[in-house]
Amino acid sequence: MKQNNNGDSAANIQNSLKQYTVTFLPFDISIDVPAGTSVLDAIKKAQLPIKATCGGKGTCGECLIRIISGSYRPRPGTKLSQQVISRGYSLACNTQINDHLTIELPQFQELTIQGTHNSVFFENRKHQLSGIYKLNPLVKSIDVQLPVPNLEENYSDLTRIKRALRKMSGIETVRCSYPVLQTLASTLRKNRWQVSIVLSKFGDSWLIIDIRSPKAQDRIYGIACDIGTTTVALQVIDLSNGKICYSVSSYNQQLKCGEDIISRINYARTPDRLTELQHLVVLTVNTLIRSTTEKLEISPQDIYLASIAGNTTMMHLLLHLDPRYIREEPYTPTFNQIDLISARDIGLNIHPDARVHLAPAVGSYLGGDITAGLLCTPVPGDDHQISAFIDIGTNGELVIGNREWLLGCACSAGPAFEGQGIQCGMPAAEGAIEQVSFEKSGSIRYKVIGNTKPKGLCGSGLIDLLAELFIHDYIDRYGKFNECKVNHKLVETDSGIGFLIEEAENCYWGKNLTIAEKDIANLIRTKAAIYSAISLMLKYIGINSSQINAFYIAGGFGKHLNIENAIRIGLFPDMPRENFHYLGNSSLVGACLMLMADENRKLVNDIAEKMTYIELNSEPGYMNEYTGALFLPHTEMGLFPTVKSIIKR
Amino acid sequence: MKQNNNGDSAANIQNSLKQYTVTFLPFDISIDVPAGTSVLDAIKKAQLPIKATCGGKGTCGECLIRIISGSYRPRPGTKLSQQVISRGYSLACNTQINDHLTIELPQFQELTIQGTHNSVFFENRKHQLSGIYKLNPLVKSIDVQLPVPNLEENYSDLTRIKRALRKMSGIETVRCSYPVLQTLASTLRKNRWQVSIVLSKFGDSWLIIDIRSPKAQDRIYGIACDIGTTTVALQVIDLSNGKICYSVSSYNQQLKCGEDIISRINYARTPDRLTELQHLVVLTVNTLIRSTTEKLEISPQDIYLASIAGNTTMMHLLLHLDPRYIREEPYTPTFNQIDLISARDIGLNIHPDARVHLAPAVGSYLGGDITAGLLCTPVPGDDHQISAFIDIGTNGELVIGNREWLLGCACSAGPAFEGQGIQCGMPAAEGAIEQVSFEKSGSIRYKVIGNTKPKGLCGSGLIDLLAELFIHDYIDRYGKFNECKVNHKLVETDSGIGFLIEEAENCYWGKNLTIAEKDIANLIRTKAAIYSAISLMLKYIGINSSQINAFYIAGGFGKHLNIENAIRIGLFPDMPRENFHYLGNSSLVGACLMLMADENRKLVNDIAEKMTYIELNSEPGYMNEYTGALFLPHTEMGLFPTVKSIIKR
Repeated sequence: MKQNNNGDSAANIQNSLKQYTVTFLPFDISIDVPAGTSVLDAIKKAQLPIKATCGGKGTCGECLIRIISGSYRPRPGTKLSQQVISRGYSLACNTQINDHLTIELPQFQELTIQGTHNSVFFENRKHQLSGIYKLNPLVKSIDVQLPVPNLEENYSDLTRIKRALRKMSGIETVRCSYPVLQTLASTLRKNRWQVSIVLSKFGDSWLIIDIRSPKAQDRIYGIACDIGTTTVALQVIDLSNGKICYSVSSYNQQLKCGEDIISRINYARTPDRLTELQHLVVLTVNTLIRSTTEKLEISPQDIYLASIAGNTTMMHLLLHLDPRYIREEPYTPTFNQIDLISARDIGLNIHPDARVHLAPAVGSYLGGDITAGLLCTPVPGDDHQISAFIDIGTNGELVIGNREWLLGCACSAGPAFEGQGIQCGMPAAEGAIEQVSFEKSGSIRYKVIGNTKPKGLCGSGLIDLLAELFIHDYIDRYGKFNECKVNHKLVETDSGIGFLIEEAENCYWGKNLTIAEKDIANLIRTKAAIYSAISLMLKYIGINSSQINAFYIAGGFGKHLNIENAIRIGLFPDMPRENFHYLGNSSLVGACLMLMADENRKLVNDIAEKMTYIELNSEPGYMNEYTGALFLPHTEMGLFPTVKSIIKR
Repeated sequence: MKQNNNGDSAANIQNSLKQYTVTFLPFDISIDVPAGTSVLDAIKKAQLPIKATCGGKGTCGECLIRIISGSYRPRPGTKLSQQVISRGYSLACNTQINDHLTIELPQFQELTIQGTHNSVFFENRKHQLSGIYKLNPLVKSIDVQLPVPNLEENYSDLTRIKRALRKMSGIETVRCSYPVLQTLASTLRKNRWQVSIVLSKFGDSWLIIDIRSPKAQDRIYGIACDIGTTTVALQVIDLSNGKICYSVSSYNQQLKCGEDIISRINYARTPDRLTELQHLVVLTVNTLIRSTTEKLEISPQDIYLASIAGNTTMMHLLLHLDPRYIREEPYTPTFNQIDLISARDIGLNIHPDARVHLAPAVGSYLGGDITAGLLCTPVPGDDHQISAFIDIGTNGELVIGNREWLLGCACSAGPAFEGQGIQCGMPAAEGAIEQVSFEKSGSIRYKVIGNTKPKGLCGSGLIDLLAELFIHDYIDRYGKFNECKVNHKLVETDSGIGFLIEEAENCYWGKNLTIAEKDIANLIRTKAAIYSAISLMLKYIGINSSQINAFYIAGGFGKHLNIENAIRIGLFPDMPRENFHYLGNSSLVGACLMLMADENRKLVNDIAEKMTYIELNSEPGYMNEYTGALFLPHTEMGLFPTVKSIIKR
């Protein structure tokens, strides 16, 4: 309840002195706030991510929360039906705290698998890896029992450690970080000369970055992180055995400053806003670290290594570098590859001397997410045949080549397949429809991640839906409704007439799940941008799609991408289906490979060195290709013989 | 004038609003202070060094200043004669600021030569150097004209620089510091792709630590620094030509926390006091840097490299390391050698990414000042003969050996020869008597540094004085006055009866210059500690002094150390005079050699590795040796045949 100037101020003041504890899930993070605080303010105070485009006016409906325990007064708004409210949902901006509450932030469901052991995780992908798959990280921990100094052997504490390390593990060149040196004398004596030494490799020498009590439960951890324009994914890896302990992801909090790269670059044009963007992306990663380490019951200080993959703009913003020259001709980034960043430099909440390795970029529009992703494919290692790799995120990037050569290009696909800009779209998280098929009866079958009521559709679901609408002639080749055929399925939506996927009562939000022509047009533009990039690259190289041996697909579509449907809508060329391989988030897996073995860091640098970037926009015929692809599946039906035959049938 | 509560408060308040500018010499540093501020407070506010043991009560007389311009009201105190006051002297604690003033801080006269060109400086010492004498510093500056990026060549800014450096100077492995990266894009464009790149060598690779406009006047500088327990000396070196631009020194501001190493270690026993000591030594160095760079009209940011030599305790305090274990058995320092410190780490006011190299120590009582000093002697490079090196500062350290072996020891000599603890003593600065001889007529001849009226005696002057007193039978072998012979020269002093060196009217301070028996006893204790260390080391090795080929002497005695007199008082063994070589501040020269060529840094590490420390205190016979040396020249006159023959004569 907001304070009204109605004379009841004494009670209000008294009430405002009360403090309530609010616990946020899935992060399991608690803070105390004064009574009367809005949940939105509490979320901001806890430095947790929340999207609220309208700024707390209650109009955008994005700041959805679910109250798990504690009493609160539900306030119906235009955006939430009574049915949804009855299940505990509320808008954070519209809810005051007057009790101890446990609140779930549904926006930040974990999107990826948890606790997967690497032997399972990587074994399935082994044949798809260019990177090596063995554990040899740049950080290690060695337990030593030092000889106690006496008058005959009173060499310095540091010399004592160096000698012990040389004797125990043959390490010759050891340096010591200044922070470790500052407490070295007391640390050694407090632990009675028995300590665990954490070393980080630096060129040919090892740097002591921590000295700890040699407790068996103190492991050394690393994090692998994929920083996408829309979502950020993070894995915590136990560097002593290579096990992936936890995977988690959330929206990139920079989203509120713009949905795509160009709008972020525009936003960053003042120093303050550049700083804001840097803080937001670090806050996103730190929130994931905090949530993960609390679940694992480990200290963030025990994370001694990080590897991060992301597009060039994201990496510039992460390092607080002005990204304007990425956008201005001739599109020159400040750096492609750098290896001297520590967690302290950028404010990552792990051990301050943890090295942070960034996957190397090729150029302004071909970033480290792509080079890291290629590590997870056989493309850069293939001797004889030509293969292709495509990563469809907010931007689409395509690489074609083999061991000898790699050509890459980028296209502004837009985030439609990540669920952004599509009313019924959402990331591949709990509640997302990931598979759709239309029954002969006319009913719609679908599969929901987490087997809940559906909240929306993720990329793979949207591709299925679009393909089924097209194949069943509910939409024409332009993406317009064939009203004579689909009329019975059309309903009113906020965006005009739309196709009804599921009725309100069966949906998570208690609202109809629909797709409007506007959304279909958005999806077609996106698939056209991707297809025309593929087509143009093949022409540039002088081959056709039948000469592509294998086609690796990365992106956040969801676990099950239906290749048949992707071809039916004209997203990918009409090639034998068995040549396509869906990888999921290859950028994250690549970052994980870089973390686990230093050899992979060298491999990924080689990949970046070897790759040539092709500027598609400056290729003649670009607009023709794109315009031709703005149909389902394409203007030239001859390019899609299998689709043509289905439609005829 | 102090404010009296006499009703005149309105005028006082008005006056206190006035600000006056005070300029301090020799630093040439100005600050504005409100009217009525004491000069002592102004000096503290300006963060300039001042010694005031009594804490500003006007009783110790140490905070002497000289007012060069501006009006002030002189206030006679117990410590200053009217004659001294009439020449502009005053006590800082006792002087209020009520005008713009220019004030000289006599304590901080520069003690060393200024603007000496290295060709002169080192040429004279060349035959005494183990270190190489060529210019090859770890920092260099390279001017590059980068190709302007275009769509065909739009690789990153950093790649552009790396390619240019490879092309121009063959440097293969280049990294970039994070601060440089953060402004790289705008720096390159602002300077139209023509820049001067400052590189610092780091292992086998070069690190870009600065990128500047390529102005001809922007040179790159380094500093060499000797941090002694009593005095700190600093040189600024132009790293593009090896020229020593400026030399300056002052008291170590830690002096107020204790005069010797042990008292500093005791003082540092709480974290706050350790921090205070760290700040004080950095403040001392920063003050010398500020004063020097202002005189040279260069920016401290243009200093890109530092090398520092000092004893082990000083280096621990500089790095904010708890020094207690240096003092506690078994006397284990935290480190002897470390090479990862940057100016930023310790707060040195030079370029924050400037590397700071510390001369390596051998152990708790044989520090980097000694290894650096040995670089300036042929001792560690001599193939055949055995030589000795002794550095007499607040502590005395002795090293004997050759190319094959080096044995070192230390003794707590005390700072008597640096002028501390002797009423008429002072460092070898302007106004110090550096040579003394007694005429047959009975009059005393002396030479004053700077040809001013004498203020006191530096080490070489004290040695001369003691020898002359002894040879002329004015004192006996115990250091007591032979009253029958010297009666006419004895006067009352603050410390009892003393020998009159010069009468008040001829002295700088307008007070008699005298030496009391207490001071003589102090000098004898110091010389006994040094001689007994030499004697015991020779016995330990199993040689006698005639087998020492050359004897190198370092310390702040002054420019002219009279070896004959040093032997007469029994400070050094009775050896052929031509075998002695006086080096001056070899620690500073060694630091300078380390700065100028990386090869010397390796040489000095080898010296430290090779050296073995001998704990004299635990040697049997130590007390016997010391007690025997508490006479002039020694109990056993047979050890000093040439002195014996003079006395007989």
